[in-house]
This record gives sequence, structure tokens and C-alpha cells, in this order.
Amino acid sequence: MYKRIKAKVFEIIQPAENGKIASRIFDYCIMSLIALCILSIFAVTFDLPAKVARLLKIIDRISVIVFTIEYLLRIWTSDLLYPEDNRLCALRKYLFSGMAIIDLLAIIPFNRLAFFPVRLTALRAFRLVRILRIFKLNRYSDSLTSISAVFKSKAKDIVTSIFVVFLLLIIASLLIYFAEHDAQPDKFKNAFSGLWWAVATLTTVGYGDIYPVTVIGRVIGAISAILGIGMVAIPTGIISSGFMEHLQAKNNKENKEEITYCPHCGKKLK
Amino acid sequence: MYKRIKAKVFEIIQPAENGKIASRIFDYCIMSLIALCILSIFAVTFDLPAKVARLLKIIDRISVIVFTIEYLLRIWTSDLLYPEDNRLCALRKYLFSGMAIIDLLAIIPFNRLAFFPVRLTALRAFRLVRILRIFKLNRYSDSLTSISAVFKSKAKDIVTSIFVVFLLLIIASLLIYFAEHDAQPDKFKNAFSGLWWAVATLTTVGYGDIYPVTVIGRVIGAISAILGIGMVAIPTGIISSGFMEHLQAKNNKENKEEITYCPHCGKKLK
Amino acid sequence: MYKRIKAKVFEIIQPAENGKIASRIFDYCIMSLIALCILSIFAVTFDLPAKVARLLKIIDRISVIVFTIEYLLRIWTSDLLYPEDNRLCALRKYLFSGMAIIDLLAIIPFNRLAFFPVRLTALRAFRLVRILRIFKLNRYSDSLTSISAVFKSKAKDIVTSIFVVFLLLIIASLLIYFAEHDAQPDKFKNAFSGLWWAVATLTTVGYGDIYPVTVIGRVIGAISAILGIGMVAIPTGIISSGFMEHLQAKNNKENKEEITYCPHCGKKLK
Amino acid sequence: MYKRIKAKVFEIIQPAENGKIASRIFDYCIMSLIALCILSIFAVTFDLPAKVARLLKIIDRISVIVFTIEYLLRIWTSDLLYPEDNRLCALRKYLFSGMAIIDLLAIIPFNRLAFFPVRLTALRAFRLVRILRIFKLNRYSDSLTSISAVFKSKAKDIVTSIFVVFLLLIIASLLIYFAEHDAQPDKFKNAFSGLWWAVATLTTVGYGDIYPVTVIGRVIGAISAILGIGMVAIPTGIISSGFMEHLQAKNNKENKEEITYCPHCGKKLK
Repeated sequence: MYKRIKAKVFEIIQPAENGKIASRIFDYCIMSLIALCILSIFAVTFDLPAKVARLLKIIDRISVIVFTIEYLLRIWTSDLLYPEDNRLCALRKYLFSGMAIIDLLAIIPFNRLAFFPVRLTALRAFRLVRILRIFKLNRYSDSLTSISAVFKSKAKDIVTSIFVVFLLLIIASLLIYFAEHDAQPDKFKNAFSGLWWAVATLTTVGYGDIYPVTVIGRVIGAISAILGIGMVAIPTGIISSGFMEHLQAKNNKENKEEITYCPHCGKKLK
Repeated sequence: MYKRIKAKVFEIIQPAENGKIASRIFDYCIMSLIALCILSIFAVTFDLPAKVARLLKIIDRISVIVFTIEYLLRIWTSDLLYPEDNRLCALRKYLFSGMAIIDLLAIIPFNRLAFFPVRLTALRAFRLVRILRIFKLNRYSDSLTSISAVFKSKAKDIVTSIFVVFLLLIIASLLIYFAEHDAQPDKFKNAFSGLWWAVATLTTVGYGDIYPVTVIGRVIGAISAILGIGMVAIPTGIISSGFMEHLQAKNNKENKEEITYCPHCGKKLK
Repeated sequence: MYKRIKAKVFEIIQPAENGKIASRIFDYCIMSLIALCILSIFAVTFDLPAKVARLLKIIDRISVIVFTIEYLLRIWTSDLLYPEDNRLCALRKYLFSGMAIIDLLAIIPFNRLAFFPVRLTALRAFRLVRILRIFKLNRYSDSLTSISAVFKSKAKDIVTSIFVVFLLLIIASLLIYFAEHDAQPDKFKNAFSGLWWAVATLTTVGYGDIYPVTVIGRVIGAISAILGIGMVAIPTGIISSGFMEHLQAKNNKENKEEITYCPHCGKKLK
Repeated sequence: MYKRIKAKVFEIIQPAENGKIASRIFDYCIMSLIALCILSIFAVTFDLPAKVARLLKIIDRISVIVFTIEYLLRIWTSDLLYPEDNRLCALRKYLFSGMAIIDLLAIIPFNRLAFFPVRLTALRAFRLVRILRIFKLNRYSDSLTSISAVFKSKAKDIVTSIFVVFLLLIIASLLIYFAEHDAQPDKFKNAFSGLWWAVATLTTVGYGDIYPVTVIGRVIGAISAILGIGMVAIPTGIISSGFMEHLQAKNNKENKEEITYCPHCGKKLK
């Protein structure tokens, strides 16, 4: 009896791949609640009449309670998620999975921590990642799968290029700091300011809150900005070739099945 | 008689694909009028002598009248556009088609609505979309067709990536709001300001009207800016692979001509 | 005699493709003079001692004289450039070719025109385009050829996408003007200001000299910025696919020659 | 004996490709020291208590000594790096290799040079390039190899496009200088300011510290910004096609295994 309830609960809270109606309803409910919750966090930041603010607080409380229950249910059924592992191992595996950490962050009950300068409500925004499950439920499922497949197949290349970018950022930030600190001591206060400038320049965002004014600083700036184009070009090239590869793999599969035998004489064509 | 006139009118107002001269002239007239109309809207925004202003107003009036007549003619002949549907169904289909809505917006006679803060003349700008028809009439026709074919074939992937971008925007805007609100309450007034910042950063526009100043805000800013590169890389990769696919499909078609006969029995393969 | 001199002159002033030494020396001289001329224009904009300024003026004078002579020689030998046309037709063809117009602009003797607000010395910068000929003379020749081949093969697609971008610019500029004019009459003075904003936003440059502040203006801004990503993605996709096509065409050519016959039995492989 | 020690030292200081444990430990030590050194340069730029500052200085001193010893060891064993050359030639080859110059710059003992406005500590940042060796030691090795292979195979195209960009920069900077100097003599002081603007615009960074205000200046700005998109599109296209080519070369190699025997006579094709 206990086992059957657990299996049922597990079936419902897992993404509804097998088309079970209860599971599907559960998914849509959770996603609606996520959307409502995010909307209320958004709304709270505006100056609102006291009544509305109280309503939003209630929505937030309810959503935290529901998400906490969901989180506990997922912990309870974690041994069904990893059936090949034993109880404890499955629990550990689940607790440290990306989605579980996001879920945990989103239900942190305190609003502030003493040592942390940002209100923790912001972390609830991460819940939105869960909403990607909508795409798993409908006709966009293929697209999301293929985009994430491309990223997975190119993960190593992307990590490598991010590392190269990281090196560029550090080098550019130190160079610009030493070039500009004497001319603008208030803007280029320390290497961290240099890093902020390097990010803004290499990503071509260019807010304009901090920029070089000396000749040597501008030369470093110009080289950084031009390297910044490479920063766009490399990942774009990697992802482009990833999409092409994905496409060709799909086409090859189809082509291989299709034209290997002559439909009239049955002989192999090639 | 009535039917023949209607068919003739329909033939004229439709894009001149079959090379009918009257239809072609009609197209060029309408497009010239659109260009003239947009030019006059542009001109009106400058400080002009009263005489010129009056002339521009007359041009605007005339263009609205002509566009209204064209719109009514299209409604009248809508049953010829969708011959397989009955009268009412065709009318409904036409009225809610993208082009008809644009046409309707462009002939709205009032200049302002009480509840809407923007002058409605601006909507006439949408008429310009119609001018793309120029490309259908000349040697750029292939290009426009292939670009729109690529977009259509990749529509799902693009929608999915826009959705992911939308999630990123929301998450980034909430995080930055909670990180920066206390330090810059006048700039990061509410989550909407955060959203505006997130758009400027993730698209790498970076106006510089609003930017993080706290350490944690800058860390969020840096991550957003680097993710912004992904925002360029993903659609570019999708569209690149779309163009490649389009090209290969065209090439394959040509190549297929060669291998349509079985080399063993000589019969056609498909 | 006259004819032989003319032929010789023509051979020298044309790009040195056939490896003639005189032609090659001429090319390098002209290119050095272009570089020197541009350098002197650059230098002139700084505050310099009178002596140096006078020297730069002399360099400018000399370079104008040399370029004028070169231009006249090219006009004189234009009938050898287009041997299939008659004298006058060849002259007309040459005078209206892109390179000849650039050459003419670069030797305009006046510094200012009454009606034109910009000093015409600036036009000499266009001479730099000529310096691309350096690439024709050395081992980068292939690269320049293949890049320009890609652009030529994709010219129609690029023109079409530029036209679409142009439409977007106009539409965005009118919308933002009508949305922001009342809130910031000094910044969004007329539709031209709107156009300037639209260019800065759609190209993701974002100087920050002009940006929307109203809610509706920011919504238009956000949509424009996101469409701006498309503005990068479309030409990038077109050019990427162009490079791929170029590559495949080259590979196909090589492959076709290579493996069509078995080197041992001489039979066709496929 | 001397020879054996030298060979052993050479083996240790070279990247640990053959899995020798001593070499691997040496690599990780050097890399840790580089990371520590960079971290201390970073830290030094902040206002720190005297004690910490002294500690950082000691770290810097030690790292310089270690790097100097490493540099000297590399010079000593340079004849083993290029075994086919004689002693002196190998030394010269090593001293002028990119990595050796970076190593030399990173151990410059003076903090400032009289004629050079930037503190030379900044040059130590270049040491970070060495840290890329981490990638050679682990599973990201393939990625780094393939990214650098793509860059090498496309080096000519990239150099050519950088040259074209350089021409565009010069032309744009001169045009904008002559268009804007009269309107904003303090911002567009000389052609160097124009160049700085051109870099910021063509790379779409757009700090907003300097921008055109005249009509003709804005027209030049708009054209530059739109050409700036091309500046992203061309290298992206080149690199994309480079990655595709790399991929196809790899796939072809695998596919070729299949068709290495003639189907008619059974002999090996190559």
C-alpha cells in the first residue's frame, strides 16, 4: 500500500512523458504557481496599495509552502528516480543535482542573511528554470532537445573558449588598471574596476561608466574591443558548427535507411 | 458582369505574379504612396513652414483615403482569396491575417486615443512592411523567399531560444533589482528598471543610463553580459545552419536528378 | 611608337599580375605614397610645430600631384582597359567605375566647398581602399579573393537583408519618436533623432546619448534591441553559409577529379 | 652525467605529454605559482593592511625568482628543444619564440621605466597565457587543439579581414574627425580621437564618451555602425566555416576508412 502510493506520487511529480493525465495536471499547476510567484515578486517591487501588497505576501507564502512540499516529496521518492542505487546514495545524488539545488534555493524561508548583502527573495527567480518543462510538454520539445544536444556535444569546446575568455579578461583588466590608475584613480580604483571594464569591453556592452582616457589605455581598449569580436565569433562558430553537425547526423540517419536498396530489383545500390 | 469586375479588381490588387500590367502598375502606385506617406510623417516631425505642413497634411489625408479604399476592396474580394471557404469564413480569415491587421492599423483615422499615450500616426510606419512587396516584383524575389524560408524552417528553434532568453531576462532583472535597489534606489526603482537593464545588457546594447555599482551587482552584470554573447551565438548558429540546410536542400535536389534511376535495373527510383 | 609607350604605361599602372618588375615597383611606390599621405593627414590634425606642419603640407601637395598624374594616365589608357569598346565608351565606363570615382574624390584640390560642411581633405581617406592592392601582390591574394567571392555570391541576400534592416530602422525610429517626443522633446527633437537612436540600438552600439525613458518607449527599445540581435544573426548566417559553400565548391572540385577511377583496374568507382 | 641531468631537466620542464610524474608535478607547481602571482598582483591594487601587503610583495619576489630560474633552465636546454639545429641557432630560435618573450616580459625586475608611462608589473599578466597548459594536461586538450587548429587554418583569412577592418577604421576616423571637429573641438581634438570613436563604433562597444552630433557626422556614424555588424559577421563566418571544415575533415577521415578498397578489383586504393 505504502509502496503503491509512493510510486503513484513519483509518477505524478515526474515530468509527464508517458501522457498520464494526473501528472500533466500537476505539471501545469506547478508551472502556473511558478509564473504567479514570479509575477508577485515583480509586483512587490512597485509601490502598491497595502491591500495588494498583503495579497502578494500571501501568494508568496503559499507558493513557498507548495514548493517545500514538492521538494520533500521529491526527496522521499528519490530512490525511485535512481532505482539502481541504494536509498542513501540516491538521496545524496538527488540532493546535489542541479534542479534540486535550484528548488532548495527557491524555498529559503529567510528574507535576508546577516553576511549576505542581497535579499534572498531574488533566488526565487531561479525557479523559472523549472518552467522550461513547459517546452517538454508540447510541440517545442524537439527544439529544446536539439538546442541542449548541441550544447552538450560542444560542451568541451565552449568550456575551453570560456576559459580563454577568462584569461583575456584577467590580462586586459590588469593592463588597463596599470595604464589608467594614475590618470583616473577614482574610476580605476583597483583591479576589480579593471575587470568590470574588461567585461563591458570584451562583451561589447560598453556602458560608458568607465573607459580609458590615456593614449596607452585607449590602445589597450582598442585591442580588447577588437578581441571582443573574436569573443562573439568563437562561440558562434562553435555553436553554428554544432547545429550543422546535429543536422547532418539527423540527415545521414534518414538517408542511410532510405536509398540503400533499389525498390524494383531489391539489389543494394552502393 | 458584377463577377467579372470583382475578379478583375481582385487580380489588380493582388501582387502581380502573373505579370499582368495593370496589377504591376497598381503595386508600384501603392508602394510610391507608402513611401510618400512615410516621408511626410518623417517631415512632419521637423519644424516646417506652415505651407509645407499643410501640404504634408493633405498628402496624409489622401494616402489614408486611398489605403482605406484598398482595404475595403480587399475585404470585398476576400472570398476570391480563399476560394475553398464560404463567404463569411473567408472574410474572417482575411480580417485576422497579419497583413490585414497592419493595413487596418495604418488607416486608423484618430490621431490619439484617450487611454493610449502615443500618437497613433506612428502606426502608419507599419505600412512599410507592405513595401517588401517591391522585392517580390524584381530579381531580389529569390533572396527574400530564401530568407523567409530559412526563418520558417527554423521557427520552432527561434521561438524556443527566444523563450530561453525571456527566462534569462526575468531572472537577471530580479537578481539585479535585489542586488542594486538599496545602493541606487532612484535608478533601480522597481523590477521593471531591472528588466530594462537586463535587456540592454543581454543584447550588449549597453546605453549606460543604468548599470550596477555594487560588487554583487557587477558580478551579476558580468555573468549577464557573457550570457549575452550566447544570446547572439545561439540564434546566429540556428540561422547559419538554416541557411546551410536550405543550400544543401537545393544542391541535393540538383544532385538527386542524377541518382533517380537504379544502376542495376534502370528503373526510376521514385 | 606612341602606341608602344601607351601600352607600356598601361602595363605599368595596372596591378602587377604578370610579374613585370616595373609594374610592381610602381605599385609599391603608389602604395607607399598613399600610406604617407594618410599619415600626414592624420598628423595634421594634431598641434604641431610650424615647421612640421609646412612639411606635411608639401607632402600633401606632392601626393595630390602624383595622384592627379596617375588619374590622367588611367584616363588616357582607359581604351586599353576595355579593348572591346570604342574610345568614348571605354572612357565613360572608366570614369564611372568605383575606383575612378574614389581616385577623383582623393584629388579634389579645394579644401572646402561653400555648401558642404565638411573639409574635403577627409575624402582622401578613401584612397586607402586602393591599398588593398597590397593583398593582390602577395600571399594573401587568395584570402581577399575568396572573401570578395563570398560577398559577390551572396550580394543579393545581403542587399535584401540590408533593405529589411532599413525598413526596421524607419519603423523603429517613427515609433520611438512618437513614444518619446512628449517626454524628452529636447532629445527626440524630430524623426531624425529617432533614426539615430534606432541605428545605435539595432546595431547594439548604444552610445547612451539618447535612450527611451517612458514605459512604452522602453518596450519599443527592448523589442528593437532584441531584433538587433537578428540584425547580427542574419548577415552572419548568410556569410557563414557563403564561406561554407565556397569551401564545398572547392572541395567538390578536388574530390571529383580524385576518386572517380580505381588506380589499379581503371574502372569507374561509382 | 652532465648530459643526463640536462636531459632530465629538459624532460621535467617540458609539458608532461608522456605522462612522466615529475614533469606533471612541475607543471602543476608552476601553474599554481602563476595563479598565486596573478592573485597577488590583483590583491595589491586594493587598499590592504601593511602586513598583507608585505606578504604579497614576498610572494611576488619569490615568483619572479622561480620564473627566472625556469627561464634560465629553458635557455640552457634550448638545444634539446630544437635538436636538429646547432647550439646558437637553437638558442636564437628559442629566445625569439612567442612563449620565451612572454616569459621574459613576466620577469622584468624593474617596476617602472623612465620613458614608459605604465607600471611594468602589468606585464606579469601575460604569464597567464602559460596557464593554458592546464588544458594540455587534461581532457580539454582536444578542444584547445581543435580551436587553435581552426585559427591556424583560417589565419590568412583572419589577417586579411583584420586588414580590411583596419582600413575601415582609418577611413571612418578621418571622416568623423573632419565632420565633427568644428562642432565638438574638445571631443574630436585630433584624428586619434576619431580613431578611438571608430573602434568603439565598429566593434559596437559604444561607450558613449564620444559620439557625433552633426547631421553628416551621424550619417557617417550610422554607416560605420552598420558596417560594424559586418565586422562581426565576417570573422564569425570565417571561423564557423573553419569549424565546419575541421569537423568534415575528421568525419571524412573516418568515412574514408570504408572506401579504401576498390569494389571491382578489391585492391587498396591508396
